[in-house]
Amino acid sequence: MDITEFRKRGKEMVDYVADYLETIEQRQVYPDVEPGYLRSLIPEEAPDEPEAYEDVIQDIERVIMPGVTHWHSPFFFAYFPTASSFPAMLADMLCGAIGCIGFSWAASPACTELETVMLDWLGKMLRLPKDFLAGTEGQGGGVIQGTASEATLVALLAARSRIVKQIQAHDPQRSEVEIISKLVAYSSDQAHSSVERAGLIGGVRMKKMSTDGKFAVCGETFRKTLEEDKASGLIPFYVSSPHPLPHHSAAPEGTVRAQGMWMHIDAAYAGSAFICPEFRPLLDGVEFADSFNFNPHKWLLVNFDCSTMWVKRRADIIGAFKMDPLYLKHDHQESGLVTDYRHWQIPLGRRFRSLKLWFVFRMYGLRGLQAYIRKHVGLAKEFERLVRNDERFEICADVVLGLVCFRLKGSNELNELLLRRINGARRVHLVPCQLAGAFVLRFAVCSRTTESRHAQEAWRHISELASELLRGQKR
Amino acid sequence: MDITEFRKRGKEMVDYVADYLETIEQRQVYPDVEPGYLRSLIPEEAPDEPEAYEDVIQDIERVIMPGVTHWHSPFFFAYFPTASSFPAMLADMLCGAIGCIGFSWAASPACTELETVMLDWLGKMLRLPKDFLAGTEGQGGGVIQGTASEATLVALLAARSRIVKQIQAHDPQRSEVEIISKLVAYSSDQAHSSVERAGLIGGVRMKKMSTDGKFAVCGETFRKTLEEDKASGLIPFYVSSPHPLPHHSAAPEGTVRAQGMWMHIDAAYAGSAFICPEFRPLLDGVEFADSFNFNPHKWLLVNFDCSTMWVKRRADIIGAFKMDPLYLKHDHQESGLVTDYRHWQIPLGRRFRSLKLWFVFRMYGLRGLQAYIRKHVGLAKEFERLVRNDERFEICADVVLGLVCFRLKGSNELNELLLRRINGARRVHLVPCQLAGAFVLRFAVCSRTTESRHAQEAWRHISELASELLRGQKR
Repeated sequence: MDITEFRKRGKEMVDYVADYLETIEQRQVYPDVEPGYLRSLIPEEAPDEPEAYEDVIQDIERVIMPGVTHWHSPFFFAYFPTASSFPAMLADMLCGAIGCIGFSWAASPACTELETVMLDWLGKMLRLPKDFLAGTEGQGGGVIQGTASEATLVALLAARSRIVKQIQAHDPQRSEVEIISKLVAYSSDQAHSSVERAGLIGGVRMKKMSTDGKFAVCGETFRKTLEEDKASGLIPFYVSSPHPLPHHSAAPEGTVRAQGMWMHIDAAYAGSAFICPEFRPLLDGVEFADSFNFNPHKWLLVNFDCSTMWVKRRADIIGAFKMDPLYLKHDHQESGLVTDYRHWQIPLGRRFRSLKLWFVFRMYGLRGLQAYIRKHVGLAKEFERLVRNDERFEICADVVLGLVCFRLKGSNELNELLLRRINGARRVHLVPCQLAGAFVLRFAVCSRTTESRHAQEAWRHISELASELLRGQKR
Repeated sequence: MDITEFRKRGKEMVDYVADYLETIEQRQVYPDVEPGYLRSLIPEEAPDEPEAYEDVIQDIERVIMPGVTHWHSPFFFAYFPTASSFPAMLADMLCGAIGCIGFSWAASPACTELETVMLDWLGKMLRLPKDFLAGTEGQGGGVIQGTASEATLVALLAARSRIVKQIQAHDPQRSEVEIISKLVAYSSDQAHSSVERAGLIGGVRMKKMSTDGKFAVCGETFRKTLEEDKASGLIPFYVSSPHPLPHHSAAPEGTVRAQGMWMHIDAAYAGSAFICPEFRPLLDGVEFADSFNFNPHKWLLVNFDCSTMWVKRRADIIGAFKMDPLYLKHDHQESGLVTDYRHWQIPLGRRFRSLKLWFVFRMYGLRGLQAYIRKHVGLAKEFERLVRNDERFEICADVVLGLVCFRLKGSNELNELLLRRINGARRVHLVPCQLAGAFVLRFAVCSRTTESRHAQEAWRHISELASELLRGQKR
């Protein structure tokens, strides 16, 4: 394909993409295919000779679309939102064309510098404490990770490296391996599975703290566990706290600070909402954290992948990874103004992802982004009202942002059956969760194009399926 | 931005991208900016209200381009190639629009299934042993990781998990933490820094084995080290071997197999060449490996990120990570045909990257891809001849693929000076490496658009700078 054909095919692709998104509501949100469907639709080997572009494009509808779960359908209420917007898609096209690998400042200065400044912009939108911003002289700063799992892992590794150095400074005889074997990290039993995985990868003990009725870790329990662990020779070093932070009189953050532990806050989904003053109080306590991350690729209109992470002391994060082979050294390396992002992350390579942030921030403006968050929260509240008006159902957790956890009053089996019918009908797509032993349905407002009429239609449909189910049960 | 404007702006962006790539040769390959240049060019905060798209686009040339190192300039010979092709960029547009997150089969069946089949296609192109293919009944299979660093880390974690289980099966009293503290992994002193980082992250000892004149690990030395380590109570469990594998009479792979260690081969750059029969012998020995990876995003015309990895026993890799919260469970989970790729990688989320492979394989065909590899190797050989014809220079390592390591006969300081002048002139861009203590210049054939005339012009330029430098030294 030469450049002339690319101009033609690229424009056709823009139209295909626009058509797809314009008519996505008419596609079945969840596919009908059975496992293994695709292999039989295409050859067993790559072709020897080039094929015609038309043949490739025709296969999108023949091979791919029948097996796609349409995450951007307004009837997709499963898992969590994944962001999509036109400005972000345009920025991604540019990112692909520049195609630089920004592992160091010199490898592409614009790639590194725009990222640092965009993370400052976003930090200010969130009213993060100044410690987390890079500015021109700050000790902290932000970085784009691929996913929240990576941010959580990087924070844990930075914490591990810091505690090892601290202990060895007092006691140079202790080996790193021996110290690591005594470390213990804590999370809440409501934390994402990625926290447990981070512990697994980092080879450290991970303890899940039980939570109260509001799903917050109790300060008293936490303090007791810490004391017991220390008494048995373990070294508490890391707490990963999902948002919101617990606000008890015996708040865990006080304990964490007193112990010199690393506190990481992962607000993967909720973080985007904190650009609205009315939701910002949910982030109170971030001033006690060493690191914080959330995913603009979930709810801030920036296409995957883009998980933004800030640290108060960049030296902590760099210390965990820094290695400098000669072929990656460059002249400006020792300047305080220079960031080599490869020391901030697991991979070496990285794309020019800050372009997406820049395009989205400028094309929406802060007010446009706030309006988007508020619209989604409004849709969740609207759905909550519909559920509450139906006596057969119950709401299972406070509806704070864009997620409604609900269920039929009755057994777990009944709710499992209802969910099976909902997803079997293919008109809307939902997934379950477990809350205090109960099987619960999650209604997550996900798509940029979800409007009131979609939420209303989804509820009508769910409520009809519930009626059918309950009639069947009576018989 | 509504859908009508997206159609217009998207087509403009296609033209901008085409213009950029069509005229990239005229841009200075390495930028003139100083650290911190960008911050002063844009506001300190995100705008409150949306800006005009024209203003955003104008800033590309004003703010971004002056700070870009142009990796796709035909005069870029630094680091390593990063792939770029029109079919891959078109596929990426489609990937962004579908915007599914393929962490499980159900989250988007097409995303998972195309990946499995494309990795089989590519495995066949490389003539990988059948054990590495998924097929419909295989125990192995492939996955797309973001980068080779991640593949190396995932392999190490899978190996760590396997050895812990093996030891505990015989001796259930031994704790995981205690076993991990005894583990030792090996790599060659020529290995990429990511191998050392993987050990660091996984919290295990990492030993670098010294290499011979051909930069291959000596089997005898390796066996001796293993014996000593075992005698001192350590547990050898993992070897990461850069390509090419050593072919000695006392070849390390025999030792590795005898010890039940995990062997991982990382051919990040070289791997793409193995689709050509004449380079495939370099991969001989892969049949002894447990896992293998290389980066189509380096040299196989698939835009970053796309690091392909294969394992012989998928159970090994899944065992290292598997965790199943309820909201990620789905009906087909227990079927043998189903792959949930979140168990194969560090992040939870993942894009629909196999589309890029599919588009590239079909639009180039195997022959087109082979021709591309051969052209680059030919350019490297051409540059090597130019160097060899100049008595002032020496070639520092066999030119096997697309990399020429060369230097002025003389001191390291002299060569450092030459490199500084080359990069200072900004007409071509090179980076150095260290080989057996010598400061060496690397000429890596990188860009898809590099032709003989670019290699010739680069050499003329370098040789002129060398003449100037040597004249200056004589005075």
